Amino acid sequence: MAGPAVPSHSDIAPLPDDPAAFLATQRSAYDDLVAQGLKFDLTRGKPGPEQLDLSEALLTLPTTHTSGGVDVRNYGGLEGLLGLRELFAELLGVQVAQLVAQGNASLTLMKDVLVDCMLKGPVDGTPWKDQGPIKFLCPVPGYDRHHALLEWLGIEMVPVPMEADGPDVAVVEALVKDDPSIKGMWLVPTYANPSGSVTEADKAARLAAMPTAASDFKILWDNAYGLHHLTDVETKTADIISLAAANGNPDRPIMFASTSKITFAGAGVSFLAASERNVKWYLGHLGMGSIGPDKVNHLRHLEFFKDADGVRAHMRKHAALIKPKFDAVQEVLSTRLGRYPHIATWTEPIGGYFVSLDVLPGTASRVVQLAKEAGVALTPAGASFPYGVDPQDTNIRLAPTFPSLDEVRVAMEAVATCVLLAAAEKLAD
Amino acid sequence: MAGPAVPSHSDIAPLPDDPAAFLATQRSAYDDLVAQGLKFDLTRGKPGPEQLDLSEALLTLPTTHTSGGVDVRNYGGLEGLLGLRELFAELLGVQVAQLVAQGNASLTLMKDVLVDCMLKGPVDGTPWKDQGPIKFLCPVPGYDRHHALLEWLGIEMVPVPMEADGPDVAVVEALVKDDPSIKGMWLVPTYANPSGSVTEADKAARLAAMPTAASDFKILWDNAYGLHHLTDVETKTADIISLAAANGNPDRPIMFASTSKITFAGAGVSFLAASERNVKWYLGHLGMGSIGPDKVNHLRHLEFFKDADGVRAHMRKHAALIKPKFDAVQEVLSTRLGRYPHIATWTEPIGGYFVSLDVLPGTASRVVQLAKEAGVALTPAGASFPYGVDPQDTNIRLAPTFPSLDEVRVAMEAVATCVLLAAAEKLAD
Repeated sequence: MAGPAVPSHSDIAPLPDDPAAFLATQRSAYDDLVAQGLKFDLTRGKPGPEQLDLSEALLTLPTTHTSGGVDVRNYGGLEGLLGLRELFAELLGVQVAQLVAQGNASLTLMKDVLVDCMLKGPVDGTPWKDQGPIKFLCPVPGYDRHHALLEWLGIEMVPVPMEADGPDVAVVEALVKDDPSIKGMWLVPTYANPSGSVTEADKAARLAAMPTAASDFKILWDNAYGLHHLTDVETKTADIISLAAANGNPDRPIMFASTSKITFAGAGVSFLAASERNVKWYLGHLGMGSIGPDKVNHLRHLEFFKDADGVRAHMRKHAALIKPKFDAVQEVLSTRLGRYPHIATWTEPIGGYFVSLDVLPGTASRVVQLAKEAGVALTPAGASFPYGVDPQDTNIRLAPTFPSLDEVRVAMEAVATCVLLAAAEKLAD
Repeated sequence: MAGPAVPSHSDIAPLPDDPAAFLATQRSAYDDLVAQGLKFDLTRGKPGPEQLDLSEALLTLPTTHTSGGVDVRNYGGLEGLLGLRELFAELLGVQVAQLVAQGNASLTLMKDVLVDCMLKGPVDGTPWKDQGPIKFLCPVPGYDRHHALLEWLGIEMVPVPMEADGPDVAVVEALVKDDPSIKGMWLVPTYANPSGSVTEADKAARLAAMPTAASDFKILWDNAYGLHHLTDVETKTADIISLAAANGNPDRPIMFASTSKITFAGAGVSFLAASERNVKWYLGHLGMGSIGPDKVNHLRHLEFFKDADGVRAHMRKHAALIKPKFDAVQEVLSTRLGRYPHIATWTEPIGGYFVSLDVLPGTASRVVQLAKEAGVALTPAGASFPYGVDPQDTNIRLAPTFPSLDEVRVAMEAVATCVLLAAAEKLAD
């Protein structure tokens, strides 16, 4: 399915016979690049303005202030507006009673859950802060904000490999079965950040069922891109909540999602889905600092989408806008780097927000530095790894959605030039 | 200034000569009350629907998606929209750099601050979770959600008396000077919940300057009602941030405010104000779970109010709607209970959302129970005290804003009847 693409070109070039000449060629190309005086930013997975425009009608909604007999303007309704929860329960494949709708950022809900586990303990355990050093498994490459949150809480991160069909479950199983200090793992199941990997149902089932030494092991299932298809293939996310329940671990997974990359990145709605017991646990702690989420924004979204098909149709409009940008990334990388599979490989995602580029080991930092000096801001090398350290110094996350199509093309040409120069420097070393 | 009113009636009744006859009279009145089959809720400080209607124009704002060159729809701007911060900095009497605008609940910011202090330590201290048992001072009667948050975190609450002009500062000073485990205090400085007390500048100055054994002592200054005047007297809240800075304790106070009772209770904007060092500390932790607040809602509020005078004019419309309700409370209580100052006294606030009623000691729970059985839901007796325990069982918080004016009248008649019956039962005991 989705996942790292292996370039298959008939004209694969051998490693250069004459590294010095290769270096001179690449340096010359780079000098030309610097002379262009570019200024582009490919660092963050932000929707572009034309994507935000798709939801402009939200600005004059809702048309009423009541929904299901509730005055959405007033306090209350900690679990979120029923109508919106019903709509997204269908899209996320969960029961309405398993779903909570909240404010503008699922990242906030993830922080809440981890803080609650630390201070108060998960629904099936005691406070993690009282248990000495604890650990989390992090599929790599992964999402830098997931890692930052764990580091902030002093939770040790253990990297596990991310493969095209999900994390290396054999490694996960081996780690968790004997070590009670491993309390959980992150996972972006569909169109993972940054690899585009999709965790297949068989791997999800193993994660749901695997014996864990920690009786309160949690899978933080960040389904940020579950609806964000780039092609006609509308990948179905594995149903981790049902799988976990069926395997006697109903409280293991906690799912997160949001409309941040569906409507407005800064003014959307976030979701948490889990067992009813987990939901009750979560709301109990949430209620210490909330008298209910912004239900006006919930109703605004409900009126805008009307139903699940409304969301699906909306997502196809996003795909129409950003697929050409992803195509441009593939096109430029193939044209410029396809002949050098020993120097660069990259993913060809069918959804999500990123392309994951692996350059010659030991050169990713140098590529980012070269690009910066040429006016192209890339996500820092190592950003997708715990503690910001990519042991191979090989991975670079490309985020093509925010710049215009022309900018993506020019920026990717620049990236290719930097990748080749950094490799040439290394090979000539 | 504001604060508990002492009823001064020429016709003060002596304690009843014949408690049995008094009891029979009150029981008869109560039986008539129950026969009416009322159904009212005076429990929470919620704005009424006609107050929410004042802000209905928000539903079709903003008219644009940019402000100060920022696309408010996208990620970013962790500190909140500049224009809105400028507007509320003026109203709250702080510098723009000292002010952060966030989501729909200042209670969330209070929880954040306490969680950050526990897990990571305040800007001037080490994590509170590592310091053994710690304590907070709570002026009583106070806000039940403040107490719940401390109890949730396992922070011991020490009550201190709330007086008409603020907390009993002599008691506070004596407690904090020698006990390093007292890490802070709550304070609702203006039109306190539920007493309506206003902390005067001299008391604020003493709190800002007092020596504390804890070097990281915090005043959580919840200015929830600072703009919520009921009369033409627009009480100025003491400038705790400047006072603390002037006294060498710049990082002691953290101020909270919101538009929850200005625009929409469930869809407003919250604020945190503090020293720039505190703001930087706060944002550093906030950024672990947020890529910026809902700036669309910030712009919506900015467009709606336009400037600080817009907010002031708006607040006068609120006062026009709710002052008659507060007047009705005073009128009914005076008429029915004014002759019995040994049985009941109450505050006559000039702002805020509550009237604090003190009944015959030992009868508050009974009053609430009687009212409930007569169909009138009151805030549970003791709710305004740490751990829900009013040692005198005397205080009842009345919240007259949500019901209609007629309902307030009928409900207060019912309350008066219950107060008298509970007292009669006690006196006949």
